[in-house]
Amino acid sequence: MTDYLFKNGHLLTMTGSGVGYMKDGAVAVTNGRITAVGPTAELEKTISAKETIDASNMCIMPGLIDGHMHASYAVVRGVAQDIWNWMQAGLAPYHKYMTPTAFLSGTRSAVLEGIKAGTTLFGDYAWPVDGWGDVFADAGVRAVLTARINSLPAQGMAGLKIGDLYPFDEARGRETIDQATAFIDNWNRAHDGRINVMYGPQGPDMIGLDQLMECKKLAASRGLKVHVHTAQGDREIDQMVKRYGERTPAFLHEIGYLDDQLLAVHLTEATDEETQLIAKSGAKMALCSGSIGIIDGIVPPAHVFRQAGGDVCLGSDQAAGNNCHNIWNEMKLTSLFNKIKYKDPTTLPAWEVLRMGTIEGARALGLDDEIGSLEVGKKADLICIDVTEPNLSPVLDGPIRTLVPNLIFAATGREVLHSMIDGRFVMRDRAILTMDEQAIREDVQLQGEKVAHAVAADPVHKSMKLLEAMEAGNL
Amino acid sequence: MTDYLFKNGHLLTMTGSGVGYMKDGAVAVTNGRITAVGPTAELEKTISAKETIDASNMCIMPGLIDGHMHASYAVVRGVAQDIWNWMQAGLAPYHKYMTPTAFLSGTRSAVLEGIKAGTTLFGDYAWPVDGWGDVFADAGVRAVLTARINSLPAQGMAGLKIGDLYPFDEARGRETIDQATAFIDNWNRAHDGRINVMYGPQGPDMIGLDQLMECKKLAASRGLKVHVHTAQGDREIDQMVKRYGERTPAFLHEIGYLDDQLLAVHLTEATDEETQLIAKSGAKMALCSGSIGIIDGIVPPAHVFRQAGGDVCLGSDQAAGNNCHNIWNEMKLTSLFNKIKYKDPTTLPAWEVLRMGTIEGARALGLDDEIGSLEVGKKADLICIDVTEPNLSPVLDGPIRTLVPNLIFAATGREVLHSMIDGRFVMRDRAILTMDEQAIREDVQLQGEKVAHAVAADPVHKSMKLLEAMEAGNL
Repeated sequence: MTDYLFKNGHLLTMTGSGVGYMKDGAVAVTNGRITAVGPTAELEKTISAKETIDASNMCIMPGLIDGHMHASYAVVRGVAQDIWNWMQAGLAPYHKYMTPTAFLSGTRSAVLEGIKAGTTLFGDYAWPVDGWGDVFADAGVRAVLTARINSLPAQGMAGLKIGDLYPFDEARGRETIDQATAFIDNWNRAHDGRINVMYGPQGPDMIGLDQLMECKKLAASRGLKVHVHTAQGDREIDQMVKRYGERTPAFLHEIGYLDDQLLAVHLTEATDEETQLIAKSGAKMALCSGSIGIIDGIVPPAHVFRQAGGDVCLGSDQAAGNNCHNIWNEMKLTSLFNKIKYKDPTTLPAWEVLRMGTIEGARALGLDDEIGSLEVGKKADLICIDVTEPNLSPVLDGPIRTLVPNLIFAATGREVLHSMIDGRFVMRDRAILTMDEQAIREDVQLQGEKVAHAVAADPVHKSMKLLEAMEAGNL
Repeated sequence: MTDYLFKNGHLLTMTGSGVGYMKDGAVAVTNGRITAVGPTAELEKTISAKETIDASNMCIMPGLIDGHMHASYAVVRGVAQDIWNWMQAGLAPYHKYMTPTAFLSGTRSAVLEGIKAGTTLFGDYAWPVDGWGDVFADAGVRAVLTARINSLPAQGMAGLKIGDLYPFDEARGRETIDQATAFIDNWNRAHDGRINVMYGPQGPDMIGLDQLMECKKLAASRGLKVHVHTAQGDREIDQMVKRYGERTPAFLHEIGYLDDQLLAVHLTEATDEETQLIAKSGAKMALCSGSIGIIDGIVPPAHVFRQAGGDVCLGSDQAAGNNCHNIWNEMKLTSLFNKIKYKDPTTLPAWEVLRMGTIEGARALGLDDEIGSLEVGKKADLICIDVTEPNLSPVLDGPIRTLVPNLIFAATGREVLHSMIDGRFVMRDRAILTMDEQAIREDVQLQGEKVAHAVAADPVHKSMKLLEAMEAGNL
């Protein structure tokens, strides 16, 4: 017997090459999977469900995919924007006091925030502190978790001048590889495949060549991807040129790292030619429009990557300087930033960024057999959106259908009423069913204050650039 | 006796040169005006209010100012984006069937949408159909209404080739001036000053010189501003060069139009030098980041305008191609677009765009004596925002205060719980008190469908560019 029948909705199935719109559509869900998709009148004839959800005046679509985030920094949301060198001049003093408790508090808050904005898959990249995987498992969300690997000295890099080559500590690399491998072998395809994993050498400049290659081999032997910050800043390019005499893309090409196993994050500093090289290799790209716009004032080359045939997923990156985990925000900014970059209002239209947030994102993560569209046999990750909200209405069906552009350019995420992941409701009528929202709100405030108090007590905070804005009364 | 005392809030008073933050702040309101602002502990000692609102965990700040919009087009939200020539290739067929009923339906829906996103002042520019002013009066919102004036032939400009000079119809100009004047003399400072008006020659290319000058004189005799689309497109510049041998800014300078009476809208095509000329004249600018980004792929020169000492207000323009009326959206996009334009993450930081949406916007509209900040004697236009929402928390007080960047880069507008205009609640705990929300939702759907059906029955719709996207299954 069918578990759930959603009926009378505007379906965006995201099948085919467009958005797969269907009027008065229905979706049946059984044992966590989609078991039927079609016109309501048709499905109602044959399907009897334990529960029927009337989705009149709602859009039913696949849940949104957040392919790259550092969720824990939600505990220090908003400490590092509107400045140069956001990481050193803004985040670093806070990062220093991110205890495991603060880390988990921020992670939970970011997941809660994402659920409330329609995200069903969370691609988190982090130190694998105890309890990290459990946050996603317990919240009932789909995840792709990547434990950070690098061979940078554990004691930090104080004393290094800007432009000095980072020293590599092979023992530290060994430790982080082993730690990641333990995490991976514990969580790979856990919870019936709901929790997925990748290997994550942090950047080609942050780990020795041998260990970089080892990560790829370890991943390959498990059928996993490698999730790597790539050409993410002039700092990285400078390190690569000094160490290897080559910019990152040429180096990765030469060592055989460019293939469909690679999820390349950011490409902030990649030229169009380098971007094409990476895309044509079969590698995938994670694009963080909001965060790179805020912290660097740059529009990464995702449009070039896609025109070269590559798949791109979107990521909300980190809330210290994005400052939100909301894929509606990323879809909209991706379209607008690229229209501006190319001075062309036809660039990355609504339907293309909607694909990046759903089926194309799933492809970039290697999960398109399971999620990203409403199709029979796929896992039931879907959201229902109230399209009678004033910012989304009217819903016009012809001659021009307005649903998709209004979702992309006007939705905030708060119009999402229901969210189902793996066939289980995680949010219903905006009530969170799998997390204690009030407790998380209180905890992240408490933990954030603890971190901030520690920063205030450390003289290092006096170098923070935003103190000038504080003194001027601008914050 | 005091009517209302808001207490225990995070105040952003927007006084001084920054954001005027005050912790544990309180605001007293009596007879529509702010009668006290200060620490809660202090105000509670002396003030006894008919009603006290506990704003713990809320931010209390001035209501947001939307200085330029064409609200009625909300009835055809989403029909004209992702294309070149959005007006002709997207909006025109719908515009043709905008009956007064549809016009009013869209206007009401846009006002409802704005209230729900914290807007308290609506700067609408439109044909003055019967009932237009009443929408704003009845909704209890503050408004600046500008009735459209031009001397373009009433029967339209069919038959004209691109680049042909527009013919001017002086009688039509007379009619629209008289119509606007009647509206203005009826509504100027109506409802105890809540409804304000401006004269609105549509653009310097759309009306003859004598009538353009007449508008300025009529406005001056009433102490009003003129609200003019200025350098809004290459089309306009081309008309001006052909007709007068000069680009718009030089022409306006020569005829004495550049002074503090002018609210210049868009400046899409103004060079930096032209922008400086206009700013230094004392004229004000209305900036529509979202709409110009979507329909033109351009970032207007507001940063240059402000650096030259000019005041800028924000505007949501029109929902046919923006696609929302949300000043949070405009503040965020304004900061991000300019960071990208100048490849500089310090450009237009959070606090500057927050000023554009409040006190600076009020100055641009000539209303800063009345609104735009929380100060004793000003009208009580204020909003209360739930800052415990996951996308806005934690709220950290030091060493870096996170409230303002998180509001600007992460708020969606849905976090606004209460909105008060002129000392009267228009929204409380997100319930709209001055409009029938359900009726408006249903009506805009009905009226939008009527317009769309009329378009579908008119063969002209076959030239619409987005039909290709419909056929491709992208909408």
